[in-house]
Parts: sequence; C-alpha cells; structure tokens
Amino acid sequence: MSIDPTVPEAPDVAPGGRPRVRSGNPISFTEEEMGQIRFGADGLVPAVIQDATDGCVLMLGYMDSEALRRTLGTGRTWFWSRSRREYWCKGETSGDRQWVRSVHYDCDGDTLLVVVDQDGRGACHTGERSCFYRSFGGQAGADAGGADAAGAGSGGE
Amino acid sequence: MSIDPTVPEAPDVAPGGRPRVRSGNPISFTEEEMGQIRFGADGLVPAVIQDATDGCVLMLGYMDSEALRRTLGTGRTWFWSRSRREYWCKGETSGDRQWVRSVHYDCDGDTLLVVVDQDGRGACHTGERSCFYRSFGGQAGADAGGADAAGAGSGGE
Repeated sequence: MSIDPTVPEAPDVAPGGRPRVRSGNPISFTEEEMGQIRFGADGLVPAVIQDATDGCVLMLGYMDSEALRRTLGTGRTWFWSRSRREYWCKGETSGDRQWVRSVHYDCDGDTLLVVVDQDGRGACHTGERSCFYRSFGGQAGADAGGADAAGAGSGGE
Repeated sequence: MSIDPTVPEAPDVAPGGRPRVRSGNPISFTEEEMGQIRFGADGLVPAVIQDATDGCVLMLGYMDSEALRRTLGTGRTWFWSRSRREYWCKGETSGDRQWVRSVHYDCDGDTLLVVVDQDGRGACHTGERSCFYRSFGGQAGADAGGADAAGAGSGGE
C-alpha cells in the first residue's frame, strides 16, 4: 500500500529475507495497559524503534500519551519532537514510513519498544538505514551488526 | 569465563544458535568520539541494550560520561541509577552480566546502542529475558518477537 506514489518503495523483501508489512494496522489496547506507562516529568517516554524483519535497532524517539495513542490507533509511528515542540508522524515528509507490528513496554513502564516495518531508505535523516551508524573504536555501525549479530542488523542495506 | 562460580552460566550457544562471548573486552576510543555524545541537561543519555546473538532488545538504561567510560573501559555495562543515584554494573549482584561487543551512537549523539552478550537468565530483574515482556493488545512480548521478527528475539528462552 502506498500513500504517496511519488515515494520510492523499499523492496517487498527486507534484507533479512522476510516479507515486509505495508499497512497501518491499529493495535487495540486497554486503559489498564495505558495506565502501566510511567511518563516522565516532561510527559515523555523514550521509544526504541526496531525493524521487524531483522531486528536492526533503527532509532529512538520520544512519545507522550497522545503520540502513543496515535501510534496504537493508526499503526504508524508518532513522536513528540522535543526541539520543534510538535507531533510528527515518521515518514510523512520523507516517505520513510514505519508500519507498526507491535508495541511493548518494559518492566518499569518507562520505556517503549516499537517493532516496525520500515519503508524507504531507512529511518535516519542522513540516509543511513539506522541512526546508530557510528561506533566507538571505529567498529562497524549498527547496520553491520555487532560481530555476528543478526539482531543489530545483518542485512547491510 | 566466570567471575562468580556460584552463578549459573547461560549455555555457550544462545537461542539464535550463535556463540556467546564471555569476557570483558575494552573498546578503545578517542576523545573526538566521546565529544560526539550530547548528554542531556541531567548529564545522561539513554542506552539501548541489545543481545548480540539474536538482536533481542533487552533493556534501556541511562549512562553519564563516567558510566560510558567505564562501559568502554571494562567491556561490561555500567549505568547511572536515577532512583538510587549511584553507578551500577549490570549483573554484579544478580550474575546477569552483559559483555560488551560494540557501542554505537546515533545521528544526534543523544542515544547509545550497546550490543552485548547476556549472561544468566536475561536482563530483567523479574526473571524475564527482556524487560519488554509486556505488550499492548495482549500480543507476545519482545522475546517472542514481533510477528516473524528475528530481531525482537526469536529464541524464546
């Protein structure tokens, strides 16, 4: 499914060889689940975004309650921009959309993990697939994986 | 390598079938690299911890400059506890140590991604492998993976 036909589509098979999902599938949730989330003093929690196809950690953004509800309600990732002080839907401008498969929260309820199918070139505004493309000690970036880590992204897009 | 022989060891082969690393390997780094990190007003950056063997996102902790230097210098994960206001080395009490393979930083320099080999039962104090064991909409936890996501941890430890 393509919202903007001018945006180049990523292949339907991701680097890991698994099929991508390309539709916004809302996730039903309860207020009890929502009540588990402990937003910080600034009303935000960090949300780790992970590629469903091969586990590559793509980026980290921040969500407040409204951004989380929009994410669950639309099946697209919504964040609160701390610098611009506004909501943004990932890929709405760049075409690098993220289709949400699942949203997890940690034992303390103060961090989210959002598993997505990533459209386009990747998640980073620099053109890299993962925002974590730089490493200490001159090691390979996250996309190349930690040693033999499939999870850090073995694809090498 | 075992520091405390009373702590049960995890199998030498992780769920993903890849061998684990069990030694503290310091990562050499430059002050230029360190200068890329933009610590927040509280002196901290979030650090996503990912299992090298299958990409499972295990937890998120916070590091200040000192914790990051200790992490790089020892090859073990060090964090700053915001609640206890003290440094802690993951697994020093529980035995659930994390051996660092690589440390990545994102395009903004305000988030770290640390790829580790996880000892023991896992990263979570609840006994779960990943802290992200709960999901909205009653879906499977992070350890079960998002749909067919290898990266979210397909092992099912």
